[in-house]
Amino acid sequence: MSTHKPEGFRNDLHRRARALHVGGKLDTAGRVPLETREDLSLAYTPGVGDISRDIAADVDLVWDLTWRSRVVAVISDGTAVLGLGDIGPEAALPVMEGKAALMTRFAGLACVPLVIDETDPDRIVELVAALAPSFGGILLEDISAPRCFEIEQRLQERLSIPVLHDDQHGTAVVVTAGLRSALAVSGRDISTTRVVIVGAGAAGTAIALMLTELGVTDVIVTDSKGIISASRTDLTPAKKDLLSSTNPRAVNGTLPDALAGADVVIGVSGGSIDASLLATMNADPIVFALANPDPEIPPADAARYSRLIATGRSDHPNQVNNLLAFPGMFLGALECGATAMTRGMLQAAARALSDLVPDPTPDQLMPSVFDPRVVPAVAEAVAAEARREGVVRG
Amino acid sequence: MSTHKPEGFRNDLHRRARALHVGGKLDTAGRVPLETREDLSLAYTPGVGDISRDIAADVDLVWDLTWRSRVVAVISDGTAVLGLGDIGPEAALPVMEGKAALMTRFAGLACVPLVIDETDPDRIVELVAALAPSFGGILLEDISAPRCFEIEQRLQERLSIPVLHDDQHGTAVVVTAGLRSALAVSGRDISTTRVVIVGAGAAGTAIALMLTELGVTDVIVTDSKGIISASRTDLTPAKKDLLSSTNPRAVNGTLPDALAGADVVIGVSGGSIDASLLATMNADPIVFALANPDPEIPPADAARYSRLIATGRSDHPNQVNNLLAFPGMFLGALECGATAMTRGMLQAAARALSDLVPDPTPDQLMPSVFDPRVVPAVAEAVAAEARREGVVRG
Repeated sequence: MSTHKPEGFRNDLHRRARALHVGGKLDTAGRVPLETREDLSLAYTPGVGDISRDIAADVDLVWDLTWRSRVVAVISDGTAVLGLGDIGPEAALPVMEGKAALMTRFAGLACVPLVIDETDPDRIVELVAALAPSFGGILLEDISAPRCFEIEQRLQERLSIPVLHDDQHGTAVVVTAGLRSALAVSGRDISTTRVVIVGAGAAGTAIALMLTELGVTDVIVTDSKGIISASRTDLTPAKKDLLSSTNPRAVNGTLPDALAGADVVIGVSGGSIDASLLATMNADPIVFALANPDPEIPPADAARYSRLIATGRSDHPNQVNNLLAFPGMFLGALECGATAMTRGMLQAAARALSDLVPDPTPDQLMPSVFDPRVVPAVAEAVAAEARREGVVRG
Repeated sequence: MSTHKPEGFRNDLHRRARALHVGGKLDTAGRVPLETREDLSLAYTPGVGDISRDIAADVDLVWDLTWRSRVVAVISDGTAVLGLGDIGPEAALPVMEGKAALMTRFAGLACVPLVIDETDPDRIVELVAALAPSFGGILLEDISAPRCFEIEQRLQERLSIPVLHDDQHGTAVVVTAGLRSALAVSGRDISTTRVVIVGAGAAGTAIALMLTELGVTDVIVTDSKGIISASRTDLTPAKKDLLSSTNPRAVNGTLPDALAGADVVIGVSGGSIDASLLATMNADPIVFALANPDPEIPPADAARYSRLIATGRSDHPNQVNNLLAFPGMFLGALECGATAMTRGMLQAAARALSDLVPDPTPDQLMPSVFDPRVVPAVAEAVAAEARREGVVRG
């Protein structure tokens, strides 16, 4: 162990988190006996040689005779970690180790955290593809936009196992679930609801796509320069792609122009939004202020304008937490032998989550992450959709 | 799970190994509580953000605040699996999963099996180097010669964590330990002992180097074409390198020429050796016939010529089993914060193993893999040597 000593703690949470993290949060464990020579002859040589021969003769047996059908890799290059940005693979490791511990605890799957010292998208794709025979699924985490779009898409095309970038689609699934509930509470019709997404990165882009698929016809996305519109000359290819499904009224300008008359604002920017702008939205607007740890609008300020508020925080009602999605999604995908994580499987996961709250209220738009129904319900919905689409191993 | 059914079993061991392997041999497990919102706030957001910030500010804290100081990757490209050859990554997975389960059980370390769909040495080096921030050590397994030499050496030069190719140095450590005992039993002086190594692959090459370091001055290595000698025109670079430390009497010819008058024969070829050749060696020769599952000379046949016989089999005395080496070696290396696995650390491990059998007999040249003293003794010796050499983190 290193002899480095803490330089002091920022606060009590920091002090307690440090104490908890000593030695890490994860372990491996054997699940066969290794106590006698007989045990070794079965689990290792010579018995394992027969198993290798079996798989060499029929590669699909790897799903039955190894842990591959039960293990997910959670992979990050450390370029967009939490709200901290590009802090490198080592500093990303505790986050990925935490995701792996959560996957283990909530889905009952095995999960391996991998942080990689490589940021070139081509080489990340090659690396993850080369590792794929080791795993049943790949959960990408905390990879910066726009690199994450290309990396995820190319891996999905190349691999025949489920690949999910959590910061895009995990977030979008949970936001979509919460929004379905919020629309129901406020009696809004999805087809006439105006949505403004503040932030055009991984989450904002995926949320825009998912809401459009769901039937929202009027989505505006903003970035730090203002509304993503055809009049902009500074758009990256990923942001240009947004134009085909968003901003149908061709609104130009900045955030106040977008919010005027809107029904929903979804903050995934990490910045802040002036609460008084909520007064320019339609009555009782839906406010999802998801920046962590500090929401774009403090919930107490937003409450002056709306009853329908969600944040990323566990100390407020309606926590939009990816933990509601990824364990059940991978459990369902692996249990049914899914060969992909399709758009339909994302929507099925979101539906399953909102269906767990059949009578939503302003204080309960989401199930709790500790609700024991969450993982089985999401898993079942995702597996059923995979089977319906036929994206399962034969 | 796949619907594939066994096509029938080769024998009872195969049937029992199949039953054992269903679902795999490994799992991950959390080691912090994740039962309440308070638990999540410490192990995951927002608490983990403080830990990431700490490591971003002082990267060495990764050793204290993640599982990195306790986790080894066992990595194979599936090109030289057991005696089965190039059977690919999926068919290699049960072997790597077994090694990981053994590391977990015997060393108490965490261990992750990674099989990679990549055989180009340059790309394997890049891939493993990119993954290195995830792990405290790298155990390479079942990579074919001569690629394994270059891959291991380049990774050792590039990384500041211990890297060990088990099929080279794990085997060499255990063979060296057994040979020390066998020389003691037979009263031979190491400096005048003639050794013949049958097989010039990963194990044969590493054994030759290690015995030379130990003081053996007369080592001859043979491959399928005969004795590795300067008169050969067909030698690969790796085999040419052997000439600088082996065959000092410049013997030419084939295996019978090498064995005539020799004291020790070490078979690591996977082929077979005519037992009657043992009659041409010096009296009571030392016979290590290590091919698995079928030794180069059946032990019963070898027994007509010698009392000093070792094999790779668990059903004969004197099993040369890498399990004696790698768990303790990585435990020692990780416990002391070793930045390399040096030649000295290999020799220290071999010494520690033979020192556990202070009064060896023909039937006990090695400790048992279940001897509880093995892992602590090897770990202590390896860590002490790393500290002596100063190859530990500051």
